Amino acid sequence: MTAEPRLSWTEVRDTIRARILARHYAPGDKLPRDEDMARDLGCARATVHRAMQDLAAAGLVERRRKGGTHVPNDPVTRATFDIPVTRREVEARGSRYSYRLISREIAESPPAVMARFGLQDPSPMLHVRALHLADHRPYILEDRWIDLATTPEILEVDLAQHSANEWLVHHKPYSRVDVRFHAVNAEGEIARHLDTPRGSALLVLERTTWIGSEPITTVQSVAAPGYEVAAQS
Amino acid sequence: MTAEPRLSWTEVRDTIRARILARHYAPGDKLPRDEDMARDLGCARATVHRAMQDLAAAGLVERRRKGGTHVPNDPVTRATFDIPVTRREVEARGSRYSYRLISREIAESPPAVMARFGLQDPSPMLHVRALHLADHRPYILEDRWIDLATTPEILEVDLAQHSANEWLVHHKPYSRVDVRFHAVNAEGEIARHLDTPRGSALLVLERTTWIGSEPITTVQSVAAPGYEVAAQS
Repeated sequence: MTAEPRLSWTEVRDTIRARILARHYAPGDKLPRDEDMARDLGCARATVHRAMQDLAAAGLVERRRKGGTHVPNDPVTRATFDIPVTRREVEARGSRYSYRLISREIAESPPAVMARFGLQDPSPMLHVRALHLADHRPYILEDRWIDLATTPEILEVDLAQHSANEWLVHHKPYSRVDVRFHAVNAEGEIARHLDTPRGSALLVLERTTWIGSEPITTVQSVAAPGYEVAAQS
Repeated sequence: MTAEPRLSWTEVRDTIRARILARHYAPGDKLPRDEDMARDLGCARATVHRAMQDLAAAGLVERRRKGGTHVPNDPVTRATFDIPVTRREVEARGSRYSYRLISREIAESPPAVMARFGLQDPSPMLHVRALHLADHRPYILEDRWIDLATTPEILEVDLAQHSANEWLVHHKPYSRVDVRFHAVNAEGEIARHLDTPRGSALLVLERTTWIGSEPITTVQSVAAPGYEVAAQS
């Protein structure tokens, strides 16, 4: 450990951030080059670089390879959310978790599932439908497809005992996830399994994961009425 | 520019990441200390530190102040989404954007709005309801409260001409945002303004922003049927 008289990257980040918030650098403005900013603030160029990476990740600045750093003209609201294993989510609410397998069958991926994965040709998959419960009340109904080329081990898992959700999270790493939200009216099987009146408005979370460019699983989770997803900056 | 024979932090990150994906470091495992990892990989300790920050931000490792680095026992699906200004969102779909002010009034914040901001006492706010349209069809109905203590300038904005959404994004920086999603059934005013049958399932995005601990604005955006939010890892 040596004494460090110069600014840390977090101090540099906070200084630049305060200038953006105070409109010293306004939307559309080009910021000074890293080396000029470093001279101005009295720190190393690498420190400015690190601070800018963090500001860029937060959407507060845009970095272009040759064009330097800008404050975006049209800032976006950027937020991050975490979806835990459903068991943990239920337990974190102080509820008792349980799980019920509805069906399990090997089938060729239908067109809607191929579209989610970006597949050209159908592929043999395991189709699993299951219900997650909180305090014995339906919580999330999941309709999941698991690619058997990348994940043949799933055939040996006793899905009546262990949810595919939990098994996959613990045993199958992925490199990319795509998440979508929309709303649907409860009907037919969904209304029946979630024990909710037909027509209720339900939040649907669709998650698709890949390892490299290979599909792992895609799941539509339909949540019981009142479910909420929260995200933060 | 000097030649750099050692690994870059992104190379170190990708190496550690590959080991986690290959279960060389499995869920619950403690990773080597940064200095040991650095010796192992032949790079600087600061390079491992930088790589670990990135892996922690992605949720692949957990860093504890005194307890070192772990692979989380219960990994979460972490995803990030961007919500652009509604005008840009509509234009990015190739549609023509338009906007209509429905109402504008100064009022004390009601309990539900105080709860979203975490306020103890009511505060004078501007309550604005407005409709965003895509190709002249209702797209998003927004019900917004703007704190007049932090944002008095909004009273001088002609909200019949400029949406509060756009004005705030361009003129009012914030330091924290909280976003929530849920589903509602269309009824009454909402069904009428969105021109959708009563009972339709609609996605609601609630966004609340602060500067420091001071409230700026909270908005409930109710989207027309078919609206989808997408997020990525």
